[in-house]
Amino acid sequence: MIISDTRQALQDLLTEYVYRIDADALESWLDLFTDDCVYEVLPLENIKQNLPAALILCENKRMLRDRIVALREANEYNAHTDRHVIGPLRIVAGEGGWTVECSYAVYQSDPDGVGRLFSVGQYRDHVVAEDGTWRFRRKTVIVDNYSIPTLLATPL
Amino acid sequence: MIISDTRQALQDLLTEYVYRIDADALESWLDLFTDDCVYEVLPLENIKQNLPAALILCENKRMLRDRIVALREANEYNAHTDRHVIGPLRIVAGEGGWTVECSYAVYQSDPDGVGRLFSVGQYRDHVVAEDGTWRFRRKTVIVDNYSIPTLLATPL
Amino acid sequence: MIISDTRQALQDLLTEYVYRIDADALESWLDLFTDDCVYEVLPLENIKQNLPAALILCENKRMLRDRIVALREANEYNAHTDRHVIGPLRIVAGEGGWTVECSYAVYQSDPDGVGRLFSVGQYRDHVVAEDGTWRFRRKTVIVDNYSIPTLLATPL
Repeated sequence: MIISDTRQALQDLLTEYVYRIDADALESWLDLFTDDCVYEVLPLENIKQNLPAALILCENKRMLRDRIVALREANEYNAHTDRHVIGPLRIVAGEGGWTVECSYAVYQSDPDGVGRLFSVGQYRDHVVAEDGTWRFRRKTVIVDNYSIPTLLATPL
Repeated sequence: MIISDTRQALQDLLTEYVYRIDADALESWLDLFTDDCVYEVLPLENIKQNLPAALILCENKRMLRDRIVALREANEYNAHTDRHVIGPLRIVAGEGGWTVECSYAVYQSDPDGVGRLFSVGQYRDHVVAEDGTWRFRRKTVIVDNYSIPTLLATPL
Repeated sequence: MIISDTRQALQDLLTEYVYRIDADALESWLDLFTDDCVYEVLPLENIKQNLPAALILCENKRMLRDRIVALREANEYNAHTDRHVIGPLRIVAGEGGWTVECSYAVYQSDPDGVGRLFSVGQYRDHVVAEDGTWRFRRKTVIVDNYSIPTLLATPL
């Protein structure tokens, strides 16, 4: 069984991940990734058919930071609020770290206070300890309802 | 790191909070608040713009109890069922207690069994120990989709 | 207070339950039930009115297995993906085991990547230890939005 402290630390990492997106604290959200991180958003259908194409692919932290900078510049065209609700973690041992899975639902509300389901799917993450802190080495977002465009969206 | 027992007790308080609303056990739901509690529902947009106006504001437990009594009298006009799904807690130390945050989504179903997303947002609570029991000293519900009227609704 | 290891084991059982449905691993999902299990899906309205009629009732594991076999044969007509998001557990002592409750929301996405809220409600389960493993002796799914037909659906 996983040591309880590690489990809680992994839970806290996921909690911070969604909290910082929802609080629009994307710059500090970047701190949750390793320098050599991979961040990718994949449609579920591609995973089922073993097709490699990603909706979003950032192959290191610099690319991820560029994406956030671009978002800040495009901000005025996409003034919504995200709210994540995530389920319990499923934790399995991974190579040199932990593999963590959980379901997520993201709701978006616009400036008039109209909300809707935006994205639903699953996280499949690889988490490693770096200088005593758990960070995402790989974050894979598998989107079930990929018909909704996400190109200008905040991270999932 | 927060002692595990305290964390679990705070989690249990939040779990009971939503369970008792969903079970329509609003009278015992009141037991989860201190006598000098503040219960408020705020639109997210007001928080962003630093405007103080609340959708609902009860400045002590008596006001909160009055609200429940009024709800019971208006009950026949609003025969729906609530179902809360809440995310993991984000716990930070607060003055003389704990500040606890979590995302929530509330679904409402009507007597014909038709359900829809009713409210989505975040709790920001201040929890204190009173006679060895954790209770809400302040419960702030920040509603993202505030365009949906909540005046006659059960508590969020 | 419940011993922390037991709480985590009960949480893991619920996490596996929804994970295996969402991963379409229904054959290994069956392993989470005892041989003499009861699996039932009830509309909330029936519970409120104390009416016994269930939408689905399997009175042992063999009936549940038959249902999965039938689903596999009807599979081509119902090619959707489920995604469960469940809330925190409410655990109370039960006869010879534990009674565990939690809220759930299930989203379904079709092969074109269009998603929607499918079912929302509550689990009320009786969990027992069998050969050192926690399993469902009774799984009761209480559906709030029972107007949505579930006859051909995967388990909730």
